[in-house]
Amino acid sequence: MPTSQPDQAFLDDFATLSTFGATPGKGVDRQAATAADGEQRHWFANWLEQRGFTVRYDKIGNQFGLLEVVPGAPYVLVGSHLDSQPLGGRFDGAYGVLAGAHAAWRLKQRWQAGAAAPKHNLAVVNWFNEEGCRFRPSLMGSGVLTGKFDLEATLAITDEAGITVAQALADIGTIDPDGEAPAAAAYAEIHIEQGPELERDGLAIGVVDATWAAKKFELVVRGEQSHTGSTPMEFRHDALLGAALVIAAVRDQADQHADVPLHACVSYLTLEPNSPVTTAREVRLHVDSRCADERVLEQAKADLFASFREIEERARVKIEQVAAHEWGNLAYQSEGVKLALDVADQLHLPRRTIMTVAGHDSTNMKDLVPTVMLFVPSVGGVSHNEREHTEDHDLLAGLGVLTEVVGRLAAGELD
Amino acid sequence: MPTSQPDQAFLDDFATLSTFGATPGKGVDRQAATAADGEQRHWFANWLEQRGFTVRYDKIGNQFGLLEVVPGAPYVLVGSHLDSQPLGGRFDGAYGVLAGAHAAWRLKQRWQAGAAAPKHNLAVVNWFNEEGCRFRPSLMGSGVLTGKFDLEATLAITDEAGITVAQALADIGTIDPDGEAPAAAAYAEIHIEQGPELERDGLAIGVVDATWAAKKFELVVRGEQSHTGSTPMEFRHDALLGAALVIAAVRDQADQHADVPLHACVSYLTLEPNSPVTTAREVRLHVDSRCADERVLEQAKADLFASFREIEERARVKIEQVAAHEWGNLAYQSEGVKLALDVADQLHLPRRTIMTVAGHDSTNMKDLVPTVMLFVPSVGGVSHNEREHTEDHDLLAGLGVLTEVVGRLAAGELD
Repeated sequence: MPTSQPDQAFLDDFATLSTFGATPGKGVDRQAATAADGEQRHWFANWLEQRGFTVRYDKIGNQFGLLEVVPGAPYVLVGSHLDSQPLGGRFDGAYGVLAGAHAAWRLKQRWQAGAAAPKHNLAVVNWFNEEGCRFRPSLMGSGVLTGKFDLEATLAITDEAGITVAQALADIGTIDPDGEAPAAAAYAEIHIEQGPELERDGLAIGVVDATWAAKKFELVVRGEQSHTGSTPMEFRHDALLGAALVIAAVRDQADQHADVPLHACVSYLTLEPNSPVTTAREVRLHVDSRCADERVLEQAKADLFASFREIEERARVKIEQVAAHEWGNLAYQSEGVKLALDVADQLHLPRRTIMTVAGHDSTNMKDLVPTVMLFVPSVGGVSHNEREHTEDHDLLAGLGVLTEVVGRLAAGELD
Repeated sequence: MPTSQPDQAFLDDFATLSTFGATPGKGVDRQAATAADGEQRHWFANWLEQRGFTVRYDKIGNQFGLLEVVPGAPYVLVGSHLDSQPLGGRFDGAYGVLAGAHAAWRLKQRWQAGAAAPKHNLAVVNWFNEEGCRFRPSLMGSGVLTGKFDLEATLAITDEAGITVAQALADIGTIDPDGEAPAAAAYAEIHIEQGPELERDGLAIGVVDATWAAKKFELVVRGEQSHTGSTPMEFRHDALLGAALVIAAVRDQADQHADVPLHACVSYLTLEPNSPVTTAREVRLHVDSRCADERVLEQAKADLFASFREIEERARVKIEQVAAHEWGNLAYQSEGVKLALDVADQLHLPRRTIMTVAGHDSTNMKDLVPTVMLFVPSVGGVSHNEREHTEDHDLLAGLGVLTEVVGRLAAGELD
């Protein structure tokens, strides 16, 4: 079947979008509020304006493309995030933003051509800093919009170079200190799965019905500087040894939970002074643990902290939690799940319900408004890696479902 | 006993020297060729010139203060290094340079007052980058002078910011691209012990008769980036987990060698991409292992590498050695040891022979010329830490011994 003109337009735009921060490995590197993020945001603003959307930023740098069809009515938001991990894939987030924009554009054209007017307006959204690598924590833009994070405290968060969120957003010119987000009536988001289940089951569409619980927390291991060579072993307080034992303990826990899978690891670590001939006096590390069963996750964290006593004794260090970012095992509204399953069935696309292990901006938005979260297959489940890949026909099938879902949300079906 | 005028002059100069790169914790932070290192080098050049020494730099930025008493004769070198670890102690290295300078000055005054002229000239030396933290490896200046390191390759080594050794030395103005080191006849160095033995034994002076063997090597652990949350555990190739298991394995080895002490740890580590939500694709780490028995150290390294197979399997990573800096369990010349013990006895200072666990520039110099290495006690053996401390009376006793040792070396006793 030849590709239709609207589908080809989407694929062409996606190819263009993938050039921002492109890496030799066919991935992208465009962390939040970097120059590459600024470039793609300005390109996307231009794309929206050329198609009659009004571009607006809010106080935390979320980017909106508004289409007001019904004056004064609230908006159905649809989108995801354009920022990426360092050497990340080109689909993660970006697919959802561009699919949301094309879905809104298709609906606009449909309404202009005489289809029944919607009840709500449409707003395409590109959330600020979903990834949480340059600036921690993740889900920053939607976290502020939904009141989970304090605006002022979030604007003051710094990157490794000491640059604040506020400054970085001002540097790329995509923040409005007086800007307001549009009033939301509903939210829809589409994303690659970031796991292997849809591909394994030969399905085109996953409708997210719940999110795994997550516990992310930052630990500080405190030891003492000493000479790596001359200090007798029994005099050492080696913070890096303490951190290594924590990293191994976290993995041990994941390995012990084969029945109810527990995903857990340490991925972020800094050490002081990081000199070849001086033992570390302080290590900071970030533990990421997730489980479909909230109680299992809770118990795993308690067990981990209980194991710290032995580590503290062996490495002669102190371990302390200094920050935490957690969410529970929460369901998406069943009405939204049913609506999305109906749409997939009408389009004859094989589908199933699925849990999301990763966090998404929809995880925040579902606590505010009726929310639909869709997945398309990801080859081999590869994620946060340049090799991440989704086939064109899966991208286009997802776009088709998203368009109908947003159309029905705009018609007020979930009000 | 009141402090003599020459001793008070030494203590005053040491207090001044300790102000360069001073830290709130009474330590110093003046890594090689940083601004603080440049300031102290210029201060020291001025000190030497005011007392009639000629200041000169060589092609790797070693700083010399020459005192030519016998035209054309070779030089007895005496000194240590002024560079420090990040948040290091104020005695490590700096004591040896200033004691060397004061010893040379005392001898100059003695000869001017009519004492028998020496056979050799004197040169105070401040070796470039003994610490090896900003630029790796350590013992850089003496390594180039003794032909162990290639000059051009060493000048091209970069720090984390990509600045070369050559550029950093030019930036602080203490390198001479045409400079030559003075021809050496002998070498003497004094240093704090960096271990607890002299203090424990109630002794004033340690005469180093041998150095522990050292094996320092850099490993790369290669894995693959993936999403910390959504990637199934069995799909992960977590380079940081691999590194953590290596760190624990290194410590296990040290703990297993209680009979012949083995000092071993990992102190330097970098990871990519170091993002909270992405497993590390690559970790670089530096292993430092030392032992008085060369064969034990050799076997320990072989055992460690044999253990990598299991780590590679568990973390699904590859581990590779990419650099190594090693030295053997080598003796200092017995004639020099005897000379130094004699001097201590004549000054009625309790003394013993001692091995050095840490590397020193004398470790390099002893392979070139007759070399004497002296230790003074270090309170609690604390080293590479702001709390490092040596009592004034121990500093002054060491200066007294060093002065006589250098005087006898200048007289040609070890020729």
